[in-house]
Order: sequence, then C-alpha cells, then structure tokens
Amino acid sequence: MSAQQAVFKIAKISSYPKSFSSSSTRRVSGVLRRSFSSVTTKATASMSLPGKKLENIVKPVPSDIEVAQAATPLRISHVLEQCKVSMEEYEPYGHYKAKISDKISKKMTEENKGHYVVVAGITPTPLGEGKSTTTIGLVQALGAHLEKFAVACIRQPSMGPTFGIKGGAAGGGYSQVIPMEEMNMHLTGDIHAIGIATNLIAAAVDTRMFHENTQSDEALFKRLFPPNKKGERKIARNMTRRLKRLGIEKTNPDEWSEKERSKFVRLDLDADKVTWRRVVDMNDRFLRQITIGESPTEKGQTRQTGFDITVASEVMAVLAMCTSLEDMDERFGKMIVGTSKSGEAVNCDDLGVTGAVTALMLEAIKPTMMQTLEGTPVLIHAGPFANIATGNSSVIADKIALSMVGKDGFVVTEAGFGADIGLEKFVNLKCRSSGLKPNCAVIVATVRALKCHGGGPAVQAGKPLDFAYLEENVNMVKDGCSNLTRHIENTRSFGIPVVIAINAFPTDTPAEHEAIRQAALAAGASAVEICTHHAEGGLGATELGKAVTRVCEENASASEFKLGYSTEDMSIEEKVEHIAKEYYRAGGVEFSEQAKEKIALFTEQGFGHLPVCMAKTQYSFSHDANMKGAPAGFTLPIGDLRLSAGAGFLVPLVGAFPTIPGLPTRPAYYEISVDTETEQIMGLS
Amino acid sequence: MSAQQAVFKIAKISSYPKSFSSSSTRRVSGVLRRSFSSVTTKATASMSLPGKKLENIVKPVPSDIEVAQAATPLRISHVLEQCKVSMEEYEPYGHYKAKISDKISKKMTEENKGHYVVVAGITPTPLGEGKSTTTIGLVQALGAHLEKFAVACIRQPSMGPTFGIKGGAAGGGYSQVIPMEEMNMHLTGDIHAIGIATNLIAAAVDTRMFHENTQSDEALFKRLFPPNKKGERKIARNMTRRLKRLGIEKTNPDEWSEKERSKFVRLDLDADKVTWRRVVDMNDRFLRQITIGESPTEKGQTRQTGFDITVASEVMAVLAMCTSLEDMDERFGKMIVGTSKSGEAVNCDDLGVTGAVTALMLEAIKPTMMQTLEGTPVLIHAGPFANIATGNSSVIADKIALSMVGKDGFVVTEAGFGADIGLEKFVNLKCRSSGLKPNCAVIVATVRALKCHGGGPAVQAGKPLDFAYLEENVNMVKDGCSNLTRHIENTRSFGIPVVIAINAFPTDTPAEHEAIRQAALAAGASAVEICTHHAEGGLGATELGKAVTRVCEENASASEFKLGYSTEDMSIEEKVEHIAKEYYRAGGVEFSEQAKEKIALFTEQGFGHLPVCMAKTQYSFSHDANMKGAPAGFTLPIGDLRLSAGAGFLVPLVGAFPTIPGLPTRPAYYEISVDTETEQIMGLS
Repeated sequence: MSAQQAVFKIAKISSYPKSFSSSSTRRVSGVLRRSFSSVTTKATASMSLPGKKLENIVKPVPSDIEVAQAATPLRISHVLEQCKVSMEEYEPYGHYKAKISDKISKKMTEENKGHYVVVAGITPTPLGEGKSTTTIGLVQALGAHLEKFAVACIRQPSMGPTFGIKGGAAGGGYSQVIPMEEMNMHLTGDIHAIGIATNLIAAAVDTRMFHENTQSDEALFKRLFPPNKKGERKIARNMTRRLKRLGIEKTNPDEWSEKERSKFVRLDLDADKVTWRRVVDMNDRFLRQITIGESPTEKGQTRQTGFDITVASEVMAVLAMCTSLEDMDERFGKMIVGTSKSGEAVNCDDLGVTGAVTALMLEAIKPTMMQTLEGTPVLIHAGPFANIATGNSSVIADKIALSMVGKDGFVVTEAGFGADIGLEKFVNLKCRSSGLKPNCAVIVATVRALKCHGGGPAVQAGKPLDFAYLEENVNMVKDGCSNLTRHIENTRSFGIPVVIAINAFPTDTPAEHEAIRQAALAAGASAVEICTHHAEGGLGATELGKAVTRVCEENASASEFKLGYSTEDMSIEEKVEHIAKEYYRAGGVEFSEQAKEKIALFTEQGFGHLPVCMAKTQYSFSHDANMKGAPAGFTLPIGDLRLSAGAGFLVPLVGAFPTIPGLPTRPAYYEISVDTETEQIMGLS
Repeated sequence: MSAQQAVFKIAKISSYPKSFSSSSTRRVSGVLRRSFSSVTTKATASMSLPGKKLENIVKPVPSDIEVAQAATPLRISHVLEQCKVSMEEYEPYGHYKAKISDKISKKMTEENKGHYVVVAGITPTPLGEGKSTTTIGLVQALGAHLEKFAVACIRQPSMGPTFGIKGGAAGGGYSQVIPMEEMNMHLTGDIHAIGIATNLIAAAVDTRMFHENTQSDEALFKRLFPPNKKGERKIARNMTRRLKRLGIEKTNPDEWSEKERSKFVRLDLDADKVTWRRVVDMNDRFLRQITIGESPTEKGQTRQTGFDITVASEVMAVLAMCTSLEDMDERFGKMIVGTSKSGEAVNCDDLGVTGAVTALMLEAIKPTMMQTLEGTPVLIHAGPFANIATGNSSVIADKIALSMVGKDGFVVTEAGFGADIGLEKFVNLKCRSSGLKPNCAVIVATVRALKCHGGGPAVQAGKPLDFAYLEENVNMVKDGCSNLTRHIENTRSFGIPVVIAINAFPTDTPAEHEAIRQAALAAGASAVEICTHHAEGGLGATELGKAVTRVCEENASASEFKLGYSTEDMSIEEKVEHIAKEYYRAGGVEFSEQAKEKIALFTEQGFGHLPVCMAKTQYSFSHDANMKGAPAGFTLPIGDLRLSAGAGFLVPLVGAFPTIPGLPTRPAYYEISVDTETEQIMGLS
C-alpha cells in the first residue's frame, strides 16, 4: 500500500477514537502490513452481531492464501467488542488475534447457553473433504447471512502437516479464518508451550534416573533438601504432593526415618518401563525410535525411546479435556511417566515438575480468538489429531463460546475425521468430560470421497485425479454411500440428529448429488444440503445454516443424547471391543502380547475404569487404510496401549500406528517463502 | 484485587481515553491479573522521556518475583508512545509486551544515533555477578534519575537455565524487567520459532537422504516436479536458488539433460558428514548424543547425531547477526547442513527449505519491548549463550534503540560473561557485522568473585557460601584483581574506555572496595563506581550513570575503537591462535585431529575467511574452569570445529564442550508453580 493510501486509511481511523491508541491519529510512519480500513465497517456494525457479508468474490476461486490476503480483517478488539468481551477478559496478540480468559467458560449455565453443533465427515481421501471449510462456511452463513450470533470452535493446526502434505487448517476458498498465515504458523504459541512442557518432563525423568543411579540416598537427600542459612531443610513447593502421596506427615525432613528418606528421594523408575516420550511439532519420522544418552557424559546410561508429534502428546490432551486452570494443574500432576521397579506408577507430582508445567501452560489455557472472512468470531484452541489423539478442540473453548452466543446463538465445533474417530471421541471422551450435549451433527460428504468408497481408483496427494473422479458415475457414488450410511448410523446411535452437507465440486452432477440425498435420508439423516461455501462463502452455506437452525430448535433439549458406553463397569478389553464392534463393525479384536501386558498393568495400577481413545487410521472404518466403503467382520489388531491418566483415558494403538508422520519427497515447504519487501508469506495452502 | 478496587482503578482509566479501547470505560467483569493504576503516572509523565522513580522500596530486598509482582507496570502502549514509536510500528502481545518493527533500525544514521554502551563482567562464579542487573540498574539510573533517554538491549532468557540452576535473566532486586515471569517464560515466542525452524531443517535433511536412498533419479524427478493439469512441470519457488547455484539456466525441467536432472534431484549428502543438529530449549543432557532412525519404518537408515540447546543454534546466531529481513533470508539460505559424498557443502537453498525457515522467523525478527521497574524501555531480542555462541543480543535491536534515543540518548547493551568471551565476540563478531562502535564499556565486578579468583574456596550454586566470602579479606580481593586487570586490558586493547561497576553486597567492606578501585585505575579504567541498584534501583547506580555519561561524551567519536583481527588475511588456525594468545594468554593452541580435518575441509570449501566464535567455559580465561585468576602460558585444546556459514563464523570447541547443559539434582522447577486462584506464577528467580 502506498503512503498515500495509508494516510487516507488512517484518516478514517482517527474518526474512530475508542479502540485505538492515541498514536492512531498520527500520520503513518513505517509500513502497514495490513490496512485498517475495516474499522469503517464498525460505524455501521458497531452494536450489531458479528458478521459482514463478503464483497467482490473472484471466480474461479484464487489460491487460499490469495483469497485470505486480499481480505481486510477487522481489528480483533472490534470483534471482541461485538462479542461483549471486556478488555479485562482478553490480551491482544498483534492486531488480529487475542487470547481470551478461560474464566469466561465459568459463566456458562444451562439457561444462557447456545445451540451446540458438531461437524464431522465421512471417511476422507488424503486430499481432505472440506470439514474445516464447512465449519467456517456454516458460521459465516449463520453469522453474516442468517443474523444469528455464531462462533466456530476449531483446533490449532500442527506445523507438521503445514510443511508436509496436507497444508494448513484455516479452511479454504471463501470460507477461511484470517489472517490464515498467522493461524497456520505459530498462532499464539500454545503448541510451542505444550512442546516445551512435555520435553521438560522428559528431561526431568532421564536426569532423575541418572542422579538416582549415581548417588546414595543420603547424597540425594542432602541435595534435594539443602539447609538454608539457619540450617533448616525446607520442602520445596512442588515436593508436597509426593509427600502427600507417600503419606508422610512430618514436614521437617530431618525428622524422617531412614526408610521415609529413601522412599521420598528414590522414584526408582524402571528405565525399560518409562513411557513418557519427547515431542516435536514437525513431521520428523527419524525421531520415531531413537537411543538417547550416548554421550560419554551420560556414563553409558543409554535407553531407547522416541518422539511423538506435539499434538499427540498428553499435555495437549489435557489442554483439550480440562475445564479450568485448577483442573489442568491437577491433571498434569496425574500424568504417568513410567513404572517403578516395584511396579508403582510414577507421575509428575512425584517428579516435582507439575507446577512448572502449569506455569508453562498458563497462557496456553486461554483460547485464541480470530475471525472468518465474513467477520464471524472463531475460537482456536488445542489441536489433537483425531487419528492418534482426541481429535477435538477444547472443552473450555466450547463453553466460552456457548456462553458468549447466548441461548439463541450457535456454536459450531469441529470433530476430526469421521464418525468412527473424531465424532466417537467427541461423544465418549469430550462430552463425557464437559457434560455438554450436542443439538445437531453435520456430516460433510463429497462425491469424490464417495466414489473412492464405491470402487474408484486410489486418490493420492500430489498426483493428478483419475478420470473416474472428473466425469459422472452415479453407480459408483451409490456404492460409496455405504460409507456415508454407516457414519449416519453411528452418529444417530448417540441420539444426535444428522444434517448432511454435500461439499459440492464443479465436476459433480445433479444425479450424483441426488444419489447421496436419497441414501442419506434413507439412513435417517434429518436433512441433506448442497453447499458451495468454498466458492461463495457463507452465502453458499445458507441452506445448510437453515437446516441446522431448524434441527437445533427441534432438538433444543438434546434429550435423546447418550454416551456410547459406561466406563466403570466395563473392562478395558470390553471397552475396546465395544468400539471395534459397534462403530467399526469389526468381527472381533486381537490383542498383542504387549497390549495384554499393558492392560494387566494399567488395570492393576487402578486405571481400568478410564474410557478409551483409539489410535487408528482415518482412511477406513478398519485398521487397513485400503478397506474402503463399509468393511465388516474383520479382526481389529491392537498392537500396544498407552496410558493418559492426566487426560483421563487409555490409548490402544490399532496395528503399529506411527505417532509422528513423515515428510513426502516434495513437501509443502518448497512453495512457502516470504516477500522480504511486503513481509507477506507466500505459498501457504 | 476486589471488584471494589477494580472499579476504582478503572474509573481512573476512563479519565485516560487515548491508549485504551472503549471497553475500558465499562465496569470490570472478569478478573484483572494486573491493576491499571499505573496510567495515573501518565497524566504527569505523558510528554516526558520514559522513566519514573521507584516508590516504597522494601528492605531487606524481597525475592525477585515478589519485587516484580508488587510493581505496577505501565501499559506498553504508553511506553512506546513516550519512545515515539507509532502504532503502525508495533504489535501488542498482551498489555505489557510489544513486538516492534525491525524497519525502525533502517532509520539509524551516523548523525541521529545515541551513545553506545556495552556491559560485560569479570570471570564469574556460578552464582553470577549481576551483569544483567547492572545493565537494568544503569538504564534506570539514566532514564529515571539523570533525565536521559536510555534504552537497554538484552537477550531473551533460555528456559533451560530458568528451570535448571541459574534461574531467569530479567535482572534482580529493584533492577528488573517486568513482568519478569512473562520475560522468563515464552516472551513473544522467538526461541520457539528458532527451535521449530531448526528442527524443520533437520527433518528435511534426514527425510531427503531417506528418499534419495530409496528412489531412482527418475522417481525423484517425477515427484519433485509433478506435472500440473496441463502436463507442465513447474519449478517450486524455493527450488530456484539451487538451480542458480548449479548454474542450470533452462527453467523447464523437461528440457534438462539426464545429467542435469540427476545433479538437481540428488543432494547426495554423506550421512556421516551431516553437521546440522536438532535443538530443544531445555537442559536435556540425554539428547547430547543419540542414534536416530531406529524405527523399522526408516529401513535401518540409523545415524548418530545430537541436540543442542536452542540458543546455541545457527538460526539463533543469524537472528542476532542479521541486519534486515532480506539479510536474514539470505543468511538462512547459506546455512550448511552437511557435505556431499563428493565433498561439496550442502546448504538450506539446496534443500529448498530457506523460504519456509524465513516464514517461521517472520515475527521473531522483531524485537520485543518491555520495561524496567522504573518504566525505562528495554528491547529483548535473540538469546545466544556467550560460552557456546555469540553471547550478544541482536544487531537489529541495538540499531533500533540507537535511532530511538537520538544523539543525546544512551543505549546500554549487554555482552555475556567476561571480556574473554562475550565482549570479545561483541567486538570481533557483532560490531564487525553491524559497523557500530561502542563509546564505553562497563565491566561488572563483585568482591565475591574477586575473592574466588584470589584463592577463595570454590563457589557452588545451591550450597551455602564459605565463611571466607562473608568476612573482610582485603588481600584475597587484591590477589583476585589479577582477573579484573586482564578484563580491563582486553577491553582497552579494542580502544574502548572502561568503567568498573562494583556490584556491592552487604557483606563487602570499604577496604575491599578500595582495593578494587586502586587495581582498576592502575589497569587503566576511566572510573570505578560502587553500585547498590539491586537494593535501591536506579538511585543506586546514579554515580555509575554519571561516569558512563562523562566517558561517552569524552569519547563521542569512538575514534580509537578497532576490531581485534582482520579475517581475510589470516588462516583459521591463526585466528584461533590470536584469540587464545591475545585474550586468554595461552602459550599455544593444540588442535585435535578432528579439528584439523574440519579446518582443512572448511578452508577448501571456501570458508577460511570467516571470523571465529569460540565455545569455551566462562569460568576461566582458560579451557579449565578451575584455573581462576589470570592463568597464562597454558596450551588451549581445540577438540572440534563447527561451521556457521549463514551466521558468518566458525565455532572452535575448546575441549569437549557440551552444547546442551544438564539439570541439577534439585532443579529450579521444584519451586515454580501457579496460584490457580490469582493466576500468578510463584517461585521464579
């Protein structure tokens, strides 16, 4: 933008004193990375609900980043004002992002809360079927076209996929969160905080074992309780929880018996049974399995372990599941890092690291507010993958949004992948923790994915689509609907009414859409709507918005909603089998020896009552990505189990499922760069 | 704070419209983490220079975090306004931090720039001698007591030490940067960005080797250049730099000869000669040396490598050394990741990852502004350790500050540790890159450290001080002054006048201070001042401030300043020997076989002209931390060399110097936790 324009735009700002600092009345020096002209919208929109219709839509749709950068975002302070969030309840991060207080979630009551809509999808192709895009398109429709107060709750994108295959996760086309590059890069640092917190615990574990192996009880005692100037030994703040756990009442260490001293100072971790893994937010496949401690300084104490991608970590899961700062702190304390030589579970309270982890996560517990291309508010919080983790954004963000929009408003939250994974976990894990009941589920379907399930050739990222996907083939679509049907059945089994959103492509034909409509209605869908929000923004999802509104109002009480299973009176095996048979339609489950041992151990340690979070491929109802459509009767292999005692669930690994992806031969980063003149990022998708 | 108080304070705010959003006039809902009463200061201070004297100082001095949390910071927008930084030149990160545009550094000219002061220290004890504290105390004195426009430039603390031994790095007592917990935790995410950027490159290296080992040239070619719908093969944005490097002119890959194809698609990295290491911002000693790729999915392509602490990474060094976004981008491209089987250096441009790295660092290039307890501005940027890296904050931050304060103002920048490391690197690396000349150096000395150099018993963190340090011992101090003398001589050898700051402790005696004064003046110091800024804030450093002002004005042209050596006409060995003999006073240097091989390789690859950044212990002029005082005539062992072609220097490792620290038996994290009610962090030091 030229200085001319800049001055012109700032002139407008000066007529808008309230939410700008005094310097806004000055002439522009330095370069504006984005114009502020948006603030003129406010004059008219000030007291109205958030949302402004898109103008000058370009056809054909330019690249995601071109669309995003052509838009002029509103000041986030303006969006927050429309949402009635006071300045004491948020902190700006730049001009277009703000962290908002998790305390707002405490304001939610049964009476004041809005309608709760969850968006999931059918079994996708590697290209993705537009679930995030539909989530954004739907709130744009509700907020900017149907005059509802609507907020979207989505997950923070991991930078692994951003630089790998999939690209970012800000939606696409004219249904996006902006500035998309800020969302796809560091956002407000939550995933970084999770990474450093997880790796602090890992360093604490290995160093503690090292010190215990090289020091006597007496030496450990003296170092853990150094005398102060008066010669007194004080118990550090974070030691008190272990003290409690061990049932030691004397708070003066000098009064402890030798047995008590030894009991306290020695966690006695079994190096072969340390389960805590390090993390990195990158597709770094070579860290899946590594040997650490090979430097001479570690005196030969080598050990095999590995890294997970940060979004698969338990710290991330806790952030997604917790309901308050206090709850988060307690859950962190319960996270298990391994087993002692005598078979006891050792947790973060034993390590004395809980408080530091909570301190690292103090800002991360606050969701980040951004906006869609049509000015509707979006809360971005937590980012667990749905295949290897819980696959849903946070309980806190949903509760904040539900209280923010009020009883006539709508909160659209996204569940990762299909009703076999993301939506199953939404119900059996997230809703179990939050106590919230969804009024409606939207399942996103595409002709492309249904053809793939109907016998179409394999779809691969980075390779041109087979001709079968570019010309009409109604029978192939009909055959593929077996997949859609099962997702509808699974969702309805939780007592949630279903609306199908057909994410329409230019190559689709009316006959293909009709085939989907008939199959969906036959399977019990409440409505089927054709959506063009990628090309048209909210306007293209208005019919979907109307259908969702109708279904939510008809199901305002969500009285038929029910969890899929009860955790207390079922064994770990029974819970895994329930999920495998009920939602995947497996004939049975085969537990590996390793899995059986873990089940025995976790049950003995008192964690058998926890619910289950399956780690499974998203590309099939089964464990085999190649089993398309609606496979049934297969035997589901469980290779291993992990325990997330803090997050509050067990993680069975279906097959040998890698918990950190790899980079392709031609990763997305080849296209990503910065124009050093304009400071704009190019090539993000 | 009670709602009562909150309303009261907000009432004050409403009488201060300009730099608050409209919502500030509303009543408070939700909880304020900090009061805003500070704004009342503004009414009086508005158009004056930044700085406000401390009120109600408590004696004895409470803990650092107690002092910090008792203070009421000014809105950062207010501090920025006093600094004449317009709202288009900064982005707020919360209410007390802001990132400011690196473009401001371009405004600096010979005419408008302020006085440039560098703070270093004598050889420290593990407890630290208060260098950061003195840096902050000095700007507080200049800004709040001597009516100068003064800005401090310091480094971002690494979280390794924060959770390990040393604690944070926001200064101490009544000379601190606030909010200290925000500075010591994530700040504005720069170190996280550096970590992910470094690890992206590492993932790119190992995955590229994997793909090259498992695919034919043809397969690689097809995947790197997938045909678009029209069947054309496009060259990705980040591939063009390698194209240029290889001298291939044809921009249509289909026109390339087989030789050109193979040349382009195969980096042919020698797995044993990959030098790029991963990083983590944590004291995780077990990652010093590891074997990666042990998962079956990596098909046996294991390799030994290791992690460094993030602040020791080349990406960090580039951030500290670069002069603009364009310069940073170019330097990233030049970073060497390893050597090909045919002996050629392979860099980030070859990997096609440069643009993505720059995109990840787009926000990190902007320094973060915070404030001292006395409202003086502080720029925090980059955080390389001084022992294993360049040990100085960024060139960009110093230039921004110099142009901000103007010709009568003062910029106080900190160099890590002593005049053997941090200050030597400040001159020979940082000033070489920036072209800036310091007007004055401040060297911080303590009676404690000088006694240690004068034969006192070893000082250890976490252990009570020996009696020798608590009672007067003038002779021990006199003997220790040999260390101070050499730091003065080294600094003067660069043509920089020296002011000695005695960081006074309650246990010091006048006779001990007098001994230091005499030794310092005899060694050529321009002045020696006793400082009590830890207990009194800027007031306790006013004499130091006056001395620094006088010396700077006398040396306004810095005409005698000179670099320590010229890079072009000296071999790598000669440069290492120069530093060892001139500044460490070694008798000679012994290069290991490995070091000799590296020197030969780097010289052959054309990097022999680069300056040298030694990785050496900070606890002695020598390689041996136990050689206190002023050792001479020893033989300095160089165990290995690393190349930082992007940052622009070579890194000789003195001995086998670990580039990632470890955690002690009783780490600082035992005390760090969060009050979940007030949301305040406790136990940070």
